[in-house]
Amino acid sequence: MMLKTPNEIDIVRAKSSKITEVDFENLSFGNIFTDHMLVCDFKNGKWEKPIIKPYEPFLIDPSAKVFHYGQAIFEGMKAYKDNQDDVWLFRPDENFHRFNKSASRMAMPEVPEDIFIGGLKTIVDLERDWVKKGLGNTLYLRPFMIAIGSGVIAQPSTQYRFMIILSPARSYYQGEVKVIIAEHYSRAANGGIGAAKAAGNYSAQFYPQKLAQEKGFQQIIWTDDATHTKLEEAGTMNVFFRINDTIITAPVSERILDGVTRKSLIALAKREGINIEERDVLVNEIVKAAKDGSLKEIFGAGTAAVVSPIVGFQYQEHYYELPKLENSLAMHLKEEITKIQYKLADDTFGWTVKI
Amino acid sequence: MMLKTPNEIDIVRAKSSKITEVDFENLSFGNIFTDHMLVCDFKNGKWEKPIIKPYEPFLIDPSAKVFHYGQAIFEGMKAYKDNQDDVWLFRPDENFHRFNKSASRMAMPEVPEDIFIGGLKTIVDLERDWVKKGLGNTLYLRPFMIAIGSGVIAQPSTQYRFMIILSPARSYYQGEVKVIIAEHYSRAANGGIGAAKAAGNYSAQFYPQKLAQEKGFQQIIWTDDATHTKLEEAGTMNVFFRINDTIITAPVSERILDGVTRKSLIALAKREGINIEERDVLVNEIVKAAKDGSLKEIFGAGTAAVVSPIVGFQYQEHYYELPKLENSLAMHLKEEITKIQYKLADDTFGWTVKI
Repeated sequence: MMLKTPNEIDIVRAKSSKITEVDFENLSFGNIFTDHMLVCDFKNGKWEKPIIKPYEPFLIDPSAKVFHYGQAIFEGMKAYKDNQDDVWLFRPDENFHRFNKSASRMAMPEVPEDIFIGGLKTIVDLERDWVKKGLGNTLYLRPFMIAIGSGVIAQPSTQYRFMIILSPARSYYQGEVKVIIAEHYSRAANGGIGAAKAAGNYSAQFYPQKLAQEKGFQQIIWTDDATHTKLEEAGTMNVFFRINDTIITAPVSERILDGVTRKSLIALAKREGINIEERDVLVNEIVKAAKDGSLKEIFGAGTAAVVSPIVGFQYQEHYYELPKLENSLAMHLKEEITKIQYKLADDTFGWTVKI
Repeated sequence: MMLKTPNEIDIVRAKSSKITEVDFENLSFGNIFTDHMLVCDFKNGKWEKPIIKPYEPFLIDPSAKVFHYGQAIFEGMKAYKDNQDDVWLFRPDENFHRFNKSASRMAMPEVPEDIFIGGLKTIVDLERDWVKKGLGNTLYLRPFMIAIGSGVIAQPSTQYRFMIILSPARSYYQGEVKVIIAEHYSRAANGGIGAAKAAGNYSAQFYPQKLAQEKGFQQIIWTDDATHTKLEEAGTMNVFFRINDTIITAPVSERILDGVTRKSLIALAKREGINIEERDVLVNEIVKAAKDGSLKEIFGAGTAAVVSPIVGFQYQEHYYELPKLENSLAMHLKEEITKIQYKLADDTFGWTVKI
């Protein structure tokens, strides 16, 4: 059955839905996908018409540039269902603009708003049954673009595929999160692609992450690659530090992703009069604060993880445990952002967009 | 027709060959592939049996890790045909070992020698008609590995595909090569993946390369990302500088690829008593040498480009033209390595391997 949407996206519906086979109470992150996907190809210098069709594998040439030169970017977003069964996106404009910044840095074509935002709205609307009510239930949205042009010469592709796939999700990190501060390995170079949500940034972290996990740490807090003295981000999360009643976080840069959750938490903290500083965070000052007891909290912030409290960190073979607080600012900010996302509080910022 | 080779690689032959349609006099690099490809999957913790079959697109899940997290590595190699119609590889053991170093850095499984080397020998033997006689004619070999496991969570894949595809090739760079020295953008971080032949390292360079090309430069010589004072490599080539009669090149490091052509040229130069130094190469000393006339040559070295003389470089808005020499060491070393590759000179190093 071929339908047309007002914004000219062709829809080929799946013959049946997999939804009844899904155990929504026991989801492991990012493993199950909904019935449909959006596909839109870029060829001959322009974007073709998007199509939404059944989720399925696709054919690609072995010499496709994405396999050999890594032209691939993505975004991570979520859809939320409120108590009235309405479905909402959170700041999709931010992801749209960041996606196109990533595209530009990776020499890929920008995706027009009607394809990115219009496509998201159309496919989320089609899959609204996959968005479950209740705090913590979300539909994780993964817009991404890959270079599908063929040829093993190190030059940008002339053909690309933009896709949106959707995965019902609960929490990303389960259990306690302990981190280790990077002393040798690095995530990003000055003048590199650290600020882009490029595929290559993630696999570059897998080996050091494996080493960290073998030592019992779930995540690495990356430091600047030249001196390893500044704390930057955690790869899938930006990182916040609370010293006494001040929260500090590294400023975004060409090495650090401009996180949507990060900027939302900063805005929320400011609205509540919490003292929050965007400035270089030195390893030394955090170690010193941990030693003298003024370091109260560390937490990560990202779309997948939302707000992820960290229970302790390792640096130079020494483990620093963080106090267990009654009045955690991390948990407070998590509550505030969650209430907006699920429409349980007034969205005074105008961040939510109804599907 | 299903054949078995002694080393247990299944072969499914193409019904007909595309070879008669190929204009071997006018090849653009990396665009045409031979009739067959090798495919070998890693699943459940082990490598399955390799198969050689007709070159064709394959099916892959939209959530494959290679698209989202960039787990992808490759090697670049060449096969050569001598005047007796024998076909040769050049130092395949070097590529094999480097491939597995890249695999390890990208948290991917190592490929066993019988699959990598055995697979190369078997498929090159099958495609030997695609290796044309005559200096400059080669069959470019592209072993690569991608993460085919599905799931949009930033963790290493559990499933991988190793493939070998083959492309008849002549020269990589055509015409004069002018370069620009990087002053802002960078290729690799300290503690990053610069020494790995990882896909993500290449797309990271595309945007700065585009900017360079718009200014009339074919390549960038990358500098260290922290200070931009040390000359490193050119992304697809290592770089050599000749000051008077001494050749200098940066030492390999975690930021610089351990090039097979690079180490071969160093060995050849040493054998001939040419003074060659592996040490930090400072931008300042090269600019000073260009100004005082002691800088005689710059050249790139890599499998695809072989030896690529550079006619001049740009730094801080100033263009430095290199002299046109009668006795170019670059051209001399290129001749020496080429003679070994095509079996026109004794291979005293034992670098060539007969198919």
